[in-house]
Amino acid sequence: MARPVLTLTTDFGLADHYVSAMKGVILGIAPNAQIVDISHEVRPFAIEQGAYLIAQSFPYFPKNAVHVVVVDPGVGSSRRAIVIEAAGQYFVGPDNGVFSMVMARERHRARAISNEKYFHHPVSRTFHGRDVFAPAAAHIASGVSAARIGRLISDPVSLDLSRPRVLHIDRFGNIVTSLRAQDFGARPRFVQIKSTRVTSAAVHYSEFDPGALFTIEGSSGYIEISMNQGSAAERVGCHAGDDVNFVP
Amino acid sequence: MARPVLTLTTDFGLADHYVSAMKGVILGIAPNAQIVDISHEVRPFAIEQGAYLIAQSFPYFPKNAVHVVVVDPGVGSSRRAIVIEAAGQYFVGPDNGVFSMVMARERHRARAISNEKYFHHPVSRTFHGRDVFAPAAAHIASGVSAARIGRLISDPVSLDLSRPRVLHIDRFGNIVTSLRAQDFGARPRFVQIKSTRVTSAAVHYSEFDPGALFTIEGSSGYIEISMNQGSAAERVGCHAGDDVNFVP
Amino acid sequence: MARPVLTLTTDFGLADHYVSAMKGVILGIAPNAQIVDISHEVRPFAIEQGAYLIAQSFPYFPKNAVHVVVVDPGVGSSRRAIVIEAAGQYFVGPDNGVFSMVMARERHRARAISNEKYFHHPVSRTFHGRDVFAPAAAHIASGVSAARIGRLISDPVSLDLSRPRVLHIDRFGNIVTSLRAQDFGARPRFVQIKSTRVTSAAVHYSEFDPGALFTIEGSSGYIEISMNQGSAAERVGCHAGDDVNFVP
Repeated sequence: MARPVLTLTTDFGLADHYVSAMKGVILGIAPNAQIVDISHEVRPFAIEQGAYLIAQSFPYFPKNAVHVVVVDPGVGSSRRAIVIEAAGQYFVGPDNGVFSMVMARERHRARAISNEKYFHHPVSRTFHGRDVFAPAAAHIASGVSAARIGRLISDPVSLDLSRPRVLHIDRFGNIVTSLRAQDFGARPRFVQIKSTRVTSAAVHYSEFDPGALFTIEGSSGYIEISMNQGSAAERVGCHAGDDVNFVP
Repeated sequence: MARPVLTLTTDFGLADHYVSAMKGVILGIAPNAQIVDISHEVRPFAIEQGAYLIAQSFPYFPKNAVHVVVVDPGVGSSRRAIVIEAAGQYFVGPDNGVFSMVMARERHRARAISNEKYFHHPVSRTFHGRDVFAPAAAHIASGVSAARIGRLISDPVSLDLSRPRVLHIDRFGNIVTSLRAQDFGARPRFVQIKSTRVTSAAVHYSEFDPGALFTIEGSSGYIEISMNQGSAAERVGCHAGDDVNFVP
Repeated sequence: MARPVLTLTTDFGLADHYVSAMKGVILGIAPNAQIVDISHEVRPFAIEQGAYLIAQSFPYFPKNAVHVVVVDPGVGSSRRAIVIEAAGQYFVGPDNGVFSMVMARERHRARAISNEKYFHHPVSRTFHGRDVFAPAAAHIASGVSAARIGRLISDPVSLDLSRPRVLHIDRFGNIVTSLRAQDFGARPRFVQIKSTRVTSAAVHYSEFDPGALFTIEGSSGYIEISMNQGSAAERVGCHAGDDVNFVP
């Protein structure tokens, strides 16, 4: 039988034991799970960064993969726990908008997680990653139907994603914008960010000499501002959330 | 057959190849092992931090899990290698106190690892994680009885854990103290740390406005000093090992 | 059946989703793979550091392990993708010298990866880790013969490795040199680095008092310059690539 795939995305970091406690709970329920870390380096409480990372990752995972995302400043309050079914996969986490980019892209159904039979007891007020999300996800990965986990809801929290902006700065200093290649239509792929106009476009990174800024279609279809072997983000001095614009 | 679960906790970091060499050795002996990283970001040589992390993690792992902990400034000297049996699980590492918090909490048996048949040869003088602990643990995970690994001992090294103190600062800046909820009896859960008195108590993190300090029962049952979406440790200016006290 | 072992070494870091996209692609092709991270903290574009890490790791992995290494400043340009067969294992990555230390040590065959049937489509110009190397490696791990992946070549890129130098600084500040114990013959194992002469030699780390520099045979057979519970690299002020010399 195929081994169930379960991914984790959190703002817990890798120095503490929190991620491993989630994995222990998962393996107690789904001993054959293939657990994959997407990232645990989401900035603390940065819901939009979590939303970006899971939306870029899920398309590369097989059918029935279960994705747990825990960026959860409201843990223990009345915010709901949810499971989203989309693209033949499952997404489990807090109802705070962290699945907005998945929901914007894919037809989906949302459920509020409510069946305490599938929780890890006692349920703490400070660590639902371990006590709610991980066990619910492991049960789904083991074949429990989402319908048994909770009831359908029509109003999962969704972030406004419409403003053209910097989605992410990656390790190399590439500036990932929310502009997609098709957004440009017939225009050249030039952009303005802060006081910088980028009016060169490349197909691969080593096409320009080190030091020159250019736009490039990144590996997820977004337009990125990059530099060959250098950090475009440092050069431009920008951060996630900053405005970007087409150059007309 | 259930796949054996084997965890790793070290001060090796993730930039070097040391952790992966241990994993290669493990998979050569126990090809079906589920290997889980607890943390490799223990501060170099910080035995007490390793002791804290493994003690917080093991309760969430299934029966027969084998935990390898390598924080080992005395590697290659005459310090013993040990395996502890406790709570239906196994703990493998140097005999330097790194299992003190597990042993203080659980009935246990300790053995000195001596059977070189279960080592990876040649055995270096600088990397027993790879050559002694990982292979011994993988053999136990594969079904070799601990009794074949080494003889019972009655005097494993144990750290003094009695002083009320800061156990750990986590990624969010939560200050985890060694005080437990039940330590407070009927008193309110207020504490003094450095020059700061914390005289508010919360049930979940978002109960207070950002910026206010409060105590809270953390996910492992310890009292923590926390702040909603901010670092209590930075505010207070404290470190692991600092004194804490009840507020009378 | 034994589960195929597949390792990953990249300069992608762990904060972004790039490594997980590779893992998703791998699990879609080889659902039972045991995936092991060697390191994702290679300095961006540091081919020689990648070459060092994979060469130190592979000897501890079982036969038929498949190693993917992606340190790839030339992605999307005309540089070739290759698979090396050596030591009963496979090495998949860009043809830029990243396998030089493996090839220098082991008899090997090299092939240029060309069969697009084994790629992930569409193939981007910026992320061959996900679209070329990961899927080719997963197919090999699943039993596809290397011969079906591409044709033999006789000229894989090889770095000049002959100069005595600092190979690596590890997390503890140990300075790993390219000198091997056998390089010293009958001479004492003393070395000169920058303005420092190290004329003490140890067998294990805690043999000298904290603060003293000594040489020691490291866990991979290289001579290292170390300090008990301190950073030799900080003391000496050196970096990867610096010259080292025998003390005559």
